[in-house]
Amino acid sequence: MDNCIFCRIARGDIPSATVYEDGDFRVILDMNQKMKGHMLVIPKEHYENLFELPEDLAAKAMILSKRVAHAAKEALHPQGLNLLQNNGEVAGQSVMHFHVHICPRMAGDDTFPAWGEAAISAEETEEIRESIHKEVNDEAAENPAE
Amino acid sequence: MDNCIFCRIARGDIPSATVYEDGDFRVILDMNQKMKGHMLVIPKEHYENLFELPEDLAAKAMILSKRVAHAAKEALHPQGLNLLQNNGEVAGQSVMHFHVHICPRMAGDDTFPAWGEAAISAEETEEIRESIHKEVNDEAAENPAE
Repeated sequence: MDNCIFCRIARGDIPSATVYEDGDFRVILDMNQKMKGHMLVIPKEHYENLFELPEDLAAKAMILSKRVAHAAKEALHPQGLNLLQNNGEVAGQSVMHFHVHICPRMAGDDTFPAWGEAAISAEETEEIRESIHKEVNDEAAENPAE
Repeated sequence: MDNCIFCRIARGDIPSATVYEDGDFRVILDMNQKMKGHMLVIPKEHYENLFELPEDLAAKAMILSKRVAHAAKEALHPQGLNLLQNNGEVAGQSVMHFHVHICPRMAGDDTFPAWGEAAISAEETEEIRESIHKEVNDEAAENPAE
């Protein structure tokens, strides 16, 4: 997609602080790092989000995230690390091209605040469970895993 | 591990609101949902974090996260969704058994605040890039991907 900045970065039309590249992915430092070593794992093909990403690329994205997370651990010695993957504007996705955030963490860095609380009753929990359980098992019946 | 609550939940010794189960994983609603449909993807074998998780299970965890995320989308109609995976106490990991959070999102839910800002210079960015680049390419040389 010509108007997608991550497509242009991924194929090298726009320069980026690249830490890794292969045929399917480019891994860059975020142009506006939220913490030291904040990286993005970006597939070269355009998929808007997790829902559109094919399963084989989802699997590769996770293996690659693990590898670059390990590299960041060795290089920067953070005390912790988050993977974050946002889908949709309300979830904080700002570029509509699938990507995984790799976020090395230090005590007190305060860049990734704790989340709030929701109060959900036992009854509602069971309704939610049933509705998701039905969907995921319908899908599993249609697309059996290996 | 007998003293690990997620090992006990994963193998069914402790009841949980299970939405999916197979030989390798159990997916449950978080016992304290931070938002409606907040789920955890938990491997049945004990691995403390992403760094310890074998690559084949990392790949399966992501494919399964995508499937249950899709199921939650169909069941609950959220406006967005986050995947979050925390490693280490400073990163918000509270149970030291690898898991992926699936977080359906609604506008204004306010349960997952935006992160702060870090100011990292161009020079420091290049130092960070070089150090991670070296580590990840050393690893890739030792463990070539398919």
